[in-house]
Amino acid sequence: MTGNNNLRIGIFDSGLGGLTVFKSLSSSFRNQATFFYLGDLAHLPYGDKSKDAIIKYSHQIVGFFINKKVDIIIVACNSASSVALDYLQKFFSTPIIGTIIPSVQEVIGKKSSKSVAIIGTDTTINSQAYNQAFLNYQLKIHSIACPLFVPIVEEGWENTDIAHQIATKYLSNISSDIDTIILACTHYPMLLDTLKAVFNKLGYHKLTFIESGKAIANHLYNNKTLQLELQNHSNLIQSRDEFYVTDNPHQFNELANKFLGEEINNIQLISL
Amino acid sequence: MTGNNNLRIGIFDSGLGGLTVFKSLSSSFRNQATFFYLGDLAHLPYGDKSKDAIIKYSHQIVGFFINKKVDIIIVACNSASSVALDYLQKFFSTPIIGTIIPSVQEVIGKKSSKSVAIIGTDTTINSQAYNQAFLNYQLKIHSIACPLFVPIVEEGWENTDIAHQIATKYLSNISSDIDTIILACTHYPMLLDTLKAVFNKLGYHKLTFIESGKAIANHLYNNKTLQLELQNHSNLIQSRDEFYVTDNPHQFNELANKFLGEEINNIQLISL
Repeated sequence: MTGNNNLRIGIFDSGLGGLTVFKSLSSSFRNQATFFYLGDLAHLPYGDKSKDAIIKYSHQIVGFFINKKVDIIIVACNSASSVALDYLQKFFSTPIIGTIIPSVQEVIGKKSSKSVAIIGTDTTINSQAYNQAFLNYQLKIHSIACPLFVPIVEEGWENTDIAHQIATKYLSNISSDIDTIILACTHYPMLLDTLKAVFNKLGYHKLTFIESGKAIANHLYNNKTLQLELQNHSNLIQSRDEFYVTDNPHQFNELANKFLGEEINNIQLISL
Repeated sequence: MTGNNNLRIGIFDSGLGGLTVFKSLSSSFRNQATFFYLGDLAHLPYGDKSKDAIIKYSHQIVGFFINKKVDIIIVACNSASSVALDYLQKFFSTPIIGTIIPSVQEVIGKKSSKSVAIIGTDTTINSQAYNQAFLNYQLKIHSIACPLFVPIVEEGWENTDIAHQIATKYLSNISSDIDTIILACTHYPMLLDTLKAVFNKLGYHKLTFIESGKAIANHLYNNKTLQLELQNHSNLIQSRDEFYVTDNPHQFNELANKFLGEEINNIQLISL
């Protein structure tokens, strides 16, 4: 498995939402990287777990990836990026990238942004990790926890009138001057059409939406060290990505297909 | 701790919903029992975990209670009762009671029931455990998974128009002849007003609602072995119930107060 010369990228999330990040990275680095995806379904969702618990689970997952000899690890979960990334980066020497810096860089890079709304889980919003990352920039930052968005997507109701009303309830008191929305949860891209319709109805017609997957792909493209690494890993070797989960509940395959848009047929159940 | 002569009852749930069961048992057996409540918040919710995972977590919790020298264990979680109870009862010699048999007995005892709807999480409904328990009775059984009910209660939206619409979406295709609803999840009693309003609007005016907490309290009252045990444990010794959780997320205290209707100030965080 380590015989090929592809860059080995580990990606993890509490569930399957991180497959939206895998999809984005996989299409950007198809011929240069082999991916290892881990969904920590045994502890899903991280959005309502404590900081200490999320650090413990993330530590175990990074250890698993290091045993798989990955070159770089992507924390595709915003809750884990918010509360565990600092710890992981201090503890492990393998490069570890979260969702927050890439999304913040995406906003800053646009230059036109003046007022940003961050929407995410309770854990992500309460951590104030995005606010910290924006601290040195002259931007207005608003943040709104939307805990029902994940279960609505998991139920497959993301395009229903109920999803529309839930989004309206969460978002109707948002500041009138926002120009940018950070989707600070890997489930939220599935809700994009509903969110756009709701914001449109609320009178916001020119919003920029930032998604973790695309932001991380751009971040990797712009990372010089990584570019050098990638030049050393461009052998175009056909490799097989590996998918792992820590639990295997019954609706699992449908959800995986939903997030990925295609079937995964080599998922392995593991214990950490 | 074991010096007093009260009956020691362990109660567990994946979260805090089981406090509705504790509340019911506590008011029924106040002067005869000391309660040990454990909320497995590290793995919450069980409703979207696999059977194997739920068995593993339940096994650890029962082991914890046995170390606490409890006389009887209540599985206050319908998902765990549905998929792990058989295993637990075979593995451990301490009496273990789930939510299903008490609820089924409650329905059978009413005699007037002919058509029963069971509403619960994905895990509970897919397990068909209630259908199995009703197998020897001449009743029509309908079952409906309502995965969004738990997050709606956790968000505190149980009495909103959105809760009303979600309930309507789940329940509007239910059979027209139902006379009894089993609330097969400890969160659902919080939704009772909304459910009654929705069923009323759908044309059901004389439904009986079965709640796990009350059903388990009645089951214990009617259990002869337990009655003998209780006679030996009626010293009216003032004892302090003990509350344990396996994780301690931030919204924790509000939720505990919501389910219990009063403050708990001696909750201990443990690792299993």
